[in-house]
Amino acid sequence: MTKERLYLYDTTLRDGQQTQGVQFSTVEKQTIAQTLDELGIDYIEGGWPGANPTDSAFFDAAPKTRATMTAFGMTKRAGMSAENDDVLAAVMNAGTGAVCLVGKTHEFHVTTALGITLDENRDNIAKSISHIVKNGREALFDAEHFFDGFKSNPEYALSCLKAALDAGARWVVLCDTNGGTLPYDVYRITAEVVAAGIPGDQLGIHTHNDTENAVAGSLAAVDAGARQVQGTLNGLGERCGNANLIAIIPTLLLKEPYASTLETGICAEALKSLTMASRQLDEILNRVPTKQAAYVGASAFAHKAGLHASAILKDPTTYEHIPPEAIGNTRIIPMSNQAGLSNLRRRLAEAGLDVQRDDPALSRILAEIKDREDHGYTYDSAQASFELLARRELGLLPEFFEVKRYKVTVERRKNKYDKMASLSEAVVVVKVDGEKKLSVSESMDGHGSDRGPVNALAKALAKDLGPFQDAIDDMRLVDFKVRITQGGTEAVTRVIIDSEDGKGRRWSTVGVSPNIVDASFEALLDAINWKLLRDA
Amino acid sequence: MTKERLYLYDTTLRDGQQTQGVQFSTVEKQTIAQTLDELGIDYIEGGWPGANPTDSAFFDAAPKTRATMTAFGMTKRAGMSAENDDVLAAVMNAGTGAVCLVGKTHEFHVTTALGITLDENRDNIAKSISHIVKNGREALFDAEHFFDGFKSNPEYALSCLKAALDAGARWVVLCDTNGGTLPYDVYRITAEVVAAGIPGDQLGIHTHNDTENAVAGSLAAVDAGARQVQGTLNGLGERCGNANLIAIIPTLLLKEPYASTLETGICAEALKSLTMASRQLDEILNRVPTKQAAYVGASAFAHKAGLHASAILKDPTTYEHIPPEAIGNTRIIPMSNQAGLSNLRRRLAEAGLDVQRDDPALSRILAEIKDREDHGYTYDSAQASFELLARRELGLLPEFFEVKRYKVTVERRKNKYDKMASLSEAVVVVKVDGEKKLSVSESMDGHGSDRGPVNALAKALAKDLGPFQDAIDDMRLVDFKVRITQGGTEAVTRVIIDSEDGKGRRWSTVGVSPNIVDASFEALLDAINWKLLRDA
Repeated sequence: MTKERLYLYDTTLRDGQQTQGVQFSTVEKQTIAQTLDELGIDYIEGGWPGANPTDSAFFDAAPKTRATMTAFGMTKRAGMSAENDDVLAAVMNAGTGAVCLVGKTHEFHVTTALGITLDENRDNIAKSISHIVKNGREALFDAEHFFDGFKSNPEYALSCLKAALDAGARWVVLCDTNGGTLPYDVYRITAEVVAAGIPGDQLGIHTHNDTENAVAGSLAAVDAGARQVQGTLNGLGERCGNANLIAIIPTLLLKEPYASTLETGICAEALKSLTMASRQLDEILNRVPTKQAAYVGASAFAHKAGLHASAILKDPTTYEHIPPEAIGNTRIIPMSNQAGLSNLRRRLAEAGLDVQRDDPALSRILAEIKDREDHGYTYDSAQASFELLARRELGLLPEFFEVKRYKVTVERRKNKYDKMASLSEAVVVVKVDGEKKLSVSESMDGHGSDRGPVNALAKALAKDLGPFQDAIDDMRLVDFKVRITQGGTEAVTRVIIDSEDGKGRRWSTVGVSPNIVDASFEALLDAINWKLLRDA
Repeated sequence: MTKERLYLYDTTLRDGQQTQGVQFSTVEKQTIAQTLDELGIDYIEGGWPGANPTDSAFFDAAPKTRATMTAFGMTKRAGMSAENDDVLAAVMNAGTGAVCLVGKTHEFHVTTALGITLDENRDNIAKSISHIVKNGREALFDAEHFFDGFKSNPEYALSCLKAALDAGARWVVLCDTNGGTLPYDVYRITAEVVAAGIPGDQLGIHTHNDTENAVAGSLAAVDAGARQVQGTLNGLGERCGNANLIAIIPTLLLKEPYASTLETGICAEALKSLTMASRQLDEILNRVPTKQAAYVGASAFAHKAGLHASAILKDPTTYEHIPPEAIGNTRIIPMSNQAGLSNLRRRLAEAGLDVQRDDPALSRILAEIKDREDHGYTYDSAQASFELLARRELGLLPEFFEVKRYKVTVERRKNKYDKMASLSEAVVVVKVDGEKKLSVSESMDGHGSDRGPVNALAKALAKDLGPFQDAIDDMRLVDFKVRITQGGTEAVTRVIIDSEDGKGRRWSTVGVSPNIVDASFEALLDAINWKLLRDA
């Protein structure tokens, strides 16, 4: 059976930039465009040339892509020709292979927002599209508020689509601009549009996530015959965001009825870079990736429930609808209060510890974890601390050094320029190989990012560990998470530290105490001990 | 027209706790249960009694609710009677009004995971449900992997549902356990189940978000006749989470075809607390609320695009599918324009500050807030710090005292019993009424809950403020939240402190610095100044 071609249109660089707090630089736009192109997206909407300086700069230096680079704009204004509309001229001047213009199809918006007649508006659409086509570009028409417009005046909304197609548009795109249309209505109205003679292979869908249904709405339109899907990476976009291509793409490629009936520009090999593409965008935006994101989240294949975890060990298809490898993600079996022994053995194996099913150490480890979790510890993400705990119970943890005492001071007072400034100082006394070593370190305002007591302690602790110094020289603290939690009957502070080393390893450790400095120090000690285990 | 009743079933406390990194304390469970009850949820699934200690402790001290408190468990095991199954006995012993048992309906899972015959499994379902009903409780049956099971053997899957209903179950719930079923299949299969004679008003739906379609899947089942929806607050849950009730509820109450045909236990007034309920859960989990969350996100009604913003000012329905007030959310228009200023005036009025529309201080306050937010501050919840900032700009903030310097030390070493113990000591120098005052305070391990440097500082600072001493004697620090966030181009620590006084007031303040001690001190100072404003 020949598959029908479905086209993917990404608007991360344009609609995605409407997100509160998001403003891409030109270089960032170039990076994202390259990732989209390597993934196999068909159209890359790069921005609105003329509307803001970075958009224009991006088109001037747009990377050469296999994908069709597309400039966004709006249909010409009334009372002037397409040739004389300077806003449209700026869009054309970007020189892209395709141009996508948004225009109105909802009579309420034509009369209220534009204040022109319905005929004038339709004429603006037709003339604008003709102008694009005459200039040898591919033309797309984004029909703003189409679903609301169709509900209030279907004849008029349809006549606008027809006007665009008659003028030579390659695509007309049904936009649910305010995000209020539910999937069933998207399906019903798209089907009526197809039944009215608009060919599905010229019909696109553009949804927003205001009811958390943008992905479902896109699929509903595809079910009804639309063959272009518009969306953004990670669902970036104004208000609640656009349809999330990162969630739509694997559904189209891996799941029925789509996998066996439709074809996209994305191959199975490229699909494996999807998780990376999602995280790259978060990195550019300096966002913590959403753990629970569909398909690509760090928790998407994490099995916490004891019953699920033991079934997964027998056969992953018991609780996984697709294999995580297909989209470049990985399976996680975390420890928790509810985890069983099989879960524990699996986790130990991941740490390189093969423990027999009947080893009594298993239940000791489990009891120790439960007890510590009751006191505020968490081992779901702190795999390195988990490994140390297990090794201690198994008698497999050497004592590299012993901390005899430490002291940390934070002092805030006026400096010589008569401004308040802080100085943190830490002293740590350790015993290594029978020898006592005393280290001191300080950090102060305005000297890089390491200005607090925890960093002073970390620096002092790492300063002189004798024979182990080489092994820890390349490690650094990359993240530090603090929360107040319940430890037994009292509030305690839980600190999770993420560390990294020159070999590209990244590991997490946990510390808990009523005293934030002690909790941090405990997590630091675990981080160093784990590193020494690997390299000393 | 009489509306059909649709029931809402929340499993935040059970399935929600399957989220990686989530472990509720008993007190947190009680708080969440009360919020759910006030909202008007019909069923609150509190946990699996016997499976872990906090779940059992919660049922022992469960709040009295209008909602039906429900205990979760699994159908009895083969080879023993329901009466003799100790796992089931622990569930029954929780004494809840309803009991929900999960059981298998997918032949592959019966034979592979359980290793029993199909008849044995169906018999286990029937006997378990009978056991619940005989004991005078309402019985629910969660049909695990129902959709996959129905696809592979529809007769068997249906026969399990019928066995549960024949045994007296009030509800049978179709669970898409691995989250892989797309909305259209949920609709089709639910419709077939109804057509096969399972009454819609005894049929529930339980979806997961692995393809970002959990909300749409729930709505599809309702479209096909199901009249119970299971989900969690904020879509908490294993892997990618459960269906998000926070997104489903407003769609059911505010949007067609649901609003005019279905009735839930949630009234229009309670719906206004939805945003608060969502943020409360994030606060308990120490999570940053998702700005783009449907309906309740801080960006859900934020209009960044210039064209949208100006249309919104003419008529909000141009770009909003529902009014934000309906769910207790607020519209955000870029700070620079008129709407931003009227928002600010409302917030000032809440702090008792009536500022005229044309007061130039308004734009100074706005600029100051924006600048501080760029540096990591947040004033969403820290209303007391917001008030102090505004008063400073308005010239309405007296200087009660001045901090000249401070110093805090944490020392950890062996005590006289040869055990490691910590001592925190703080020295604070303030100038009050022209007089310099030097206070010192210490806190140590094992002496109440105040054992860290921040508490030592708080005690020292509050120790001697001369004429203001009376006013602050009854205040205490009740919560302390720390987060690493972005401040300009660098990572900074943000501390939010909640304080309380003898008059029952509770207020929040914020401090930001690369140094956690400095950030804490800043928030402490705000807390004390706010208290002095009220009482000095």
